[in-house]
Amino acid sequence: MIQKQLLDSGEDRLIAKYFRPLVRHPGALGLTDDAAMLTPPAGCDLVLKIDGMHVFQDDPAELIARKALRVNLSDLAAKGAKPVGFLLSLALPDGTSADWLAAFARGLGSDADNYACPLLGGDTDRTPGLLTVYIAAFGIVPQGTMVRRNGARPGDQILVTGSIGDAALGLRLRGDPKMVARWGLDAPMRDYLTQRYLLPQPRNAIAEALRVYAHAAMDISDGLAGDLAKLVRVSNVHAEIDVGRVPLSDAVKTALAAKPPLIDDILTGGDDYEVVCTVPPDKLDAFRATAVAAGVPVTDIGRVAEGTGARFNWDGRQLAFEHPSFSHF
Amino acid sequence: MIQKQLLDSGEDRLIAKYFRPLVRHPGALGLTDDAAMLTPPAGCDLVLKIDGMHVFQDDPAELIARKALRVNLSDLAAKGAKPVGFLLSLALPDGTSADWLAAFARGLGSDADNYACPLLGGDTDRTPGLLTVYIAAFGIVPQGTMVRRNGARPGDQILVTGSIGDAALGLRLRGDPKMVARWGLDAPMRDYLTQRYLLPQPRNAIAEALRVYAHAAMDISDGLAGDLAKLVRVSNVHAEIDVGRVPLSDAVKTALAAKPPLIDDILTGGDDYEVVCTVPPDKLDAFRATAVAAGVPVTDIGRVAEGTGARFNWDGRQLAFEHPSFSHF
Repeated sequence: MIQKQLLDSGEDRLIAKYFRPLVRHPGALGLTDDAAMLTPPAGCDLVLKIDGMHVFQDDPAELIARKALRVNLSDLAAKGAKPVGFLLSLALPDGTSADWLAAFARGLGSDADNYACPLLGGDTDRTPGLLTVYIAAFGIVPQGTMVRRNGARPGDQILVTGSIGDAALGLRLRGDPKMVARWGLDAPMRDYLTQRYLLPQPRNAIAEALRVYAHAAMDISDGLAGDLAKLVRVSNVHAEIDVGRVPLSDAVKTALAAKPPLIDDILTGGDDYEVVCTVPPDKLDAFRATAVAAGVPVTDIGRVAEGTGARFNWDGRQLAFEHPSFSHF
Repeated sequence: MIQKQLLDSGEDRLIAKYFRPLVRHPGALGLTDDAAMLTPPAGCDLVLKIDGMHVFQDDPAELIARKALRVNLSDLAAKGAKPVGFLLSLALPDGTSADWLAAFARGLGSDADNYACPLLGGDTDRTPGLLTVYIAAFGIVPQGTMVRRNGARPGDQILVTGSIGDAALGLRLRGDPKMVARWGLDAPMRDYLTQRYLLPQPRNAIAEALRVYAHAAMDISDGLAGDLAKLVRVSNVHAEIDVGRVPLSDAVKTALAAKPPLIDDILTGGDDYEVVCTVPPDKLDAFRATAVAAGVPVTDIGRVAEGTGARFNWDGRQLAFEHPSFSHF
């Protein structure tokens, strides 16, 4: 294991300077104790999520912090949970600057306030490796109402929020800027896709609608095709998807028109952080109306049937993906 | 940020193979959902802790897993909390072997069972950096009874569990094996100190006694001197420590007799994972009796007074530490 170094109490000063100003919740105990405290309201279940990122420090610190929190908020949203707080664990390489930390804390604090998900506590450490940000986020739902992956039933409609594939193409553009011209994108389209990769928009605004109307839901972090495959597998059902109805941004439509094989990246690339859910037909209108009122676009892309697996139909043929899901392994 | 790679769904297989067999808690949902669920009993506060390690893989995987869980359990113990479960986030470098993963899961599962702290969920990822293990652990206490750092009062006695300084010397031996001879240690002493570094013994057996009898407590992860300094600072009191009464193992006593300056390492080195607490005199007998019954040695090492700071008296003089606390910065 890594040898810890004996140094003056810099950790306390770092916490006091950058993270204590973010405290809003009494359970954070002013970040002066070893653990945080939370009293879930009676009659609620707690929904718990942990997710982390190992990052190169070339992206803006503010965005790294916000994305780290948002990927966890996205899971809470898909489960129908209202955020109640989070723990942060931050491992910093030597030489991390005060400016970097200040920007990181600023980004984290602003999204913690935006999403009403306060910092409860955490841990800072040094690492000889990459800068690492782990967040464990907590939400609440009325007892027994967490929206599961395994609740899809034959006859349900399948809906997704927002647009699909933006982040996957945004990531490819970052790796190879020449694609901007090849895909026929203009500068605003390029910026839009890049931004969608760097800063997801978790759909917490419809968490309650999901809890009330959806049979099953999950956030799309590893690509629509792969995540939907997981959902139908645990629900023991089949999904029939009309790819022509999958909502695409203008930027993605433009790229796809130039390079039709991009459909594979669009449907299987990671980092959408939209929600896919299944809703019974009799609740569809109410779900749509609630989502619209919350400012979240939702699109019906197919339906659940008896059987297994997911079929993606496009222009009269069935898509076969090389790798149906983004996976880290 | 790091580019994610499009691969087959190895992550699901990895979870199914190594971690699903560890599931004991219904809220883990068989590790088939995006988040875990926990229903804290009515009238309880939840105690939340996150801690992580970036590790070189030269130590046994089983010990890495157990230490990662135990450092979190140690915090729950010091706060008087009963463990209820944990989330794991694991980032693996390329080439991590199946044997390594199997040993890691075995170690994790055995301590999860030993300490009745079940796996609730988690996240696995790849990293181009060091292998990283983060754990967020959760405990419960009856509402309002979490043992704080800031409760010490003048007149309290100061006690510690177990023995102090073993891990600090164990770590130094690992860095420089020549010290074994210089400190006059035999092989069993060397092994004992190394083991105390690799595998802490969290004091969960006295969590309830702390809750019932202690005014203040914290676990000693960054050295007795530094952690006690934090405790007296937030409690706004002074601590007077009789170093001659600080409990030392035979191995540490032997090394200290050979090299008296080691007293600095012993009192300021990290990784003890013992508990320091303050107990009012009228509850001292009951606390001791409960601790003895739980098999946890506790030693009275000094007392709390009006004032600020902590004074360590040894052989008629006052110790001045170069770095009073282990710190990561």
